[in-house]
Amino acid sequence: MPTTRAYAAPSAKAPLAPFSLERREPRAQDVLIDILYCGVCHSDIHQVRDEWGGSLFPMVPGHEIVGRVARVGSAVTRFKVGDAVGVGCFVDSCRTCGPCRKGEEQYCAEGMVGTYNSRERDGAPTFGGYSTHITVEEGYVLRIPESLPLDRAAPLLCAGITTYSPLRHYGVKAGDKVAVVGLGGLGHMGVKLAKTMGAEVTVLSTSPSKQKDALALGAAHFAATSDKNTFTSLRGHFDYILDTVSAPHDYNAYLNLLKVDGTMILVGAPDAPTPLAAFPLIMGRRKLGGSLIGGIRETQEMLDFCAQHGVASDIEVIPIQKINEAYERMLKGDVRYRFVIDIASLRGP
Amino acid sequence: MPTTRAYAAPSAKAPLAPFSLERREPRAQDVLIDILYCGVCHSDIHQVRDEWGGSLFPMVPGHEIVGRVARVGSAVTRFKVGDAVGVGCFVDSCRTCGPCRKGEEQYCAEGMVGTYNSRERDGAPTFGGYSTHITVEEGYVLRIPESLPLDRAAPLLCAGITTYSPLRHYGVKAGDKVAVVGLGGLGHMGVKLAKTMGAEVTVLSTSPSKQKDALALGAAHFAATSDKNTFTSLRGHFDYILDTVSAPHDYNAYLNLLKVDGTMILVGAPDAPTPLAAFPLIMGRRKLGGSLIGGIRETQEMLDFCAQHGVASDIEVIPIQKINEAYERMLKGDVRYRFVIDIASLRGP
Repeated sequence: MPTTRAYAAPSAKAPLAPFSLERREPRAQDVLIDILYCGVCHSDIHQVRDEWGGSLFPMVPGHEIVGRVARVGSAVTRFKVGDAVGVGCFVDSCRTCGPCRKGEEQYCAEGMVGTYNSRERDGAPTFGGYSTHITVEEGYVLRIPESLPLDRAAPLLCAGITTYSPLRHYGVKAGDKVAVVGLGGLGHMGVKLAKTMGAEVTVLSTSPSKQKDALALGAAHFAATSDKNTFTSLRGHFDYILDTVSAPHDYNAYLNLLKVDGTMILVGAPDAPTPLAAFPLIMGRRKLGGSLIGGIRETQEMLDFCAQHGVASDIEVIPIQKINEAYERMLKGDVRYRFVIDIASLRGP
Repeated sequence: MPTTRAYAAPSAKAPLAPFSLERREPRAQDVLIDILYCGVCHSDIHQVRDEWGGSLFPMVPGHEIVGRVARVGSAVTRFKVGDAVGVGCFVDSCRTCGPCRKGEEQYCAEGMVGTYNSRERDGAPTFGGYSTHITVEEGYVLRIPESLPLDRAAPLLCAGITTYSPLRHYGVKAGDKVAVVGLGGLGHMGVKLAKTMGAEVTVLSTSPSKQKDALALGAAHFAATSDKNTFTSLRGHFDYILDTVSAPHDYNAYLNLLKVDGTMILVGAPDAPTPLAAFPLIMGRRKLGGSLIGGIRETQEMLDFCAQHGVASDIEVIPIQKINEAYERMLKGDVRYRFVIDIASLRGP
């Protein structure tokens, strides 16, 4: 097994820098993947900077991984060398708990094994997709339909499934009025997916400058949340609100935009609690729910759905050497709408 | 029409005192009711003291009304003189909006007409059940099954339907693990109703002294929320939490007691927002929902369900002259579990 080249954060205060690591030899059910592209998720920054606590260093981030199968173990049945494949936010789980048996490994009772900043069930640290290779058990590998461009498919593995899963789980259907709050990596996928499901999508954003993009992405309407009138004119208007914002904001104001029996779904996680009033929930029998990525089965369903409908992420491809700069730009919201690392830049001449 | 005797609050700062008012002559579709019993709801105190704002004075509270039909209008078809009937939290609504057409008048787009502290659609103030008579359109009158004791049926019109409706709406079924938070007027009905639906009920209460009552009411388990171990030992345990507490408390701690896909339902409304973290919702795809009383059709269904299963409220009957003292006792939690006014005490000799 050749040494895997990577970029790692040596500690929470340091920039990412070149790093090398050894991937495990493929076991009977493993797939060795030559990584081609890796999306850059906002949670990479949170974890690299230890903003959620408990980060493991050195850390090789990256959980929006797309590549081609380089080798397969002796018992692998679903993949062959050369197949286009993906790896998302987790690479293993207990496989025996209720959620795992239902194919919802993201809610594994023992905790899923994260693709990075986590530990394998044998205790070995996991390293993510800012690297040239990864070895993953085939049950945790996704098939990328050949009609999807590989670079633009990478963000589907996290941003795509994070928005697809709740739209399906909470029952969004054609004709529903759906608001997407925030137009970043998650939000832009939420708009595309909800629109493709037949919903009438409204983007709610603090930035009036995003109106043009919102409509181009498929939204029927745009409303600036910096305009107080938005919260009166759209009162009781939506069946669903998909909230992708991870900065603290006033949930109560948004809940009042829901119809009776409407649902607001949180997929962005502010790092501090925010005040919630019971009245908006009680007076309209509204619900506030959450959703975490998606299981392997549903992630495959999402990839197939995207291939069928020609949906992929809007991206800016960067070489790995620009990753620290990319983080700074993301913190300013300066990306439309996802950075994707071209891993060729790691392989060198 | 004889003068109706009542008790009213002349202002937010004054105790309730004798009052008299004129009820309207029954119109074609109206029922005139001789009130026999009226339950005392915690929201009576909130409104009498103008704690939610906008209270109308003089105020005759009371929306857990049971009595017998004294007269009927010429077009009334569903009731006859002598029938046992009830009136709950509202006496009219727009009848044309989506919720009204679905029989969920409590979510009327124009706002339901409250039984008291509200205005009829013609602008006349409404006065509640701390009174000898009330005139209500038959479409907003409930039939009390003859097998229910009338005094113990009164609290079903608010406390009963407020807990029955969300248990039904959110899908509680036999075998589900249901926690009821708070053992007051709402909570004790929540325990009885969830148990009767076949759920395994746990009461979560700050007061360990309520354990014996909780089990007697039908709970299978009791856990004191003053004991921090409760929040670790019951982590991920419940399918549903029915939260009846209207004092501020930490929703996040309770949300973590839900299984994956579990639902916490708020029926108590603290008057101030409390901090909510997104993580407990996201990590277990949990939901936090609300529910407001119930519509006329479902309230009738609840009354019939209670009659069929022998469920009624546990009450302490008082004369109207003790109402101010009863309020003070309620504020100390000193009632098991609902005061019901014997309206005979208003009729005099």
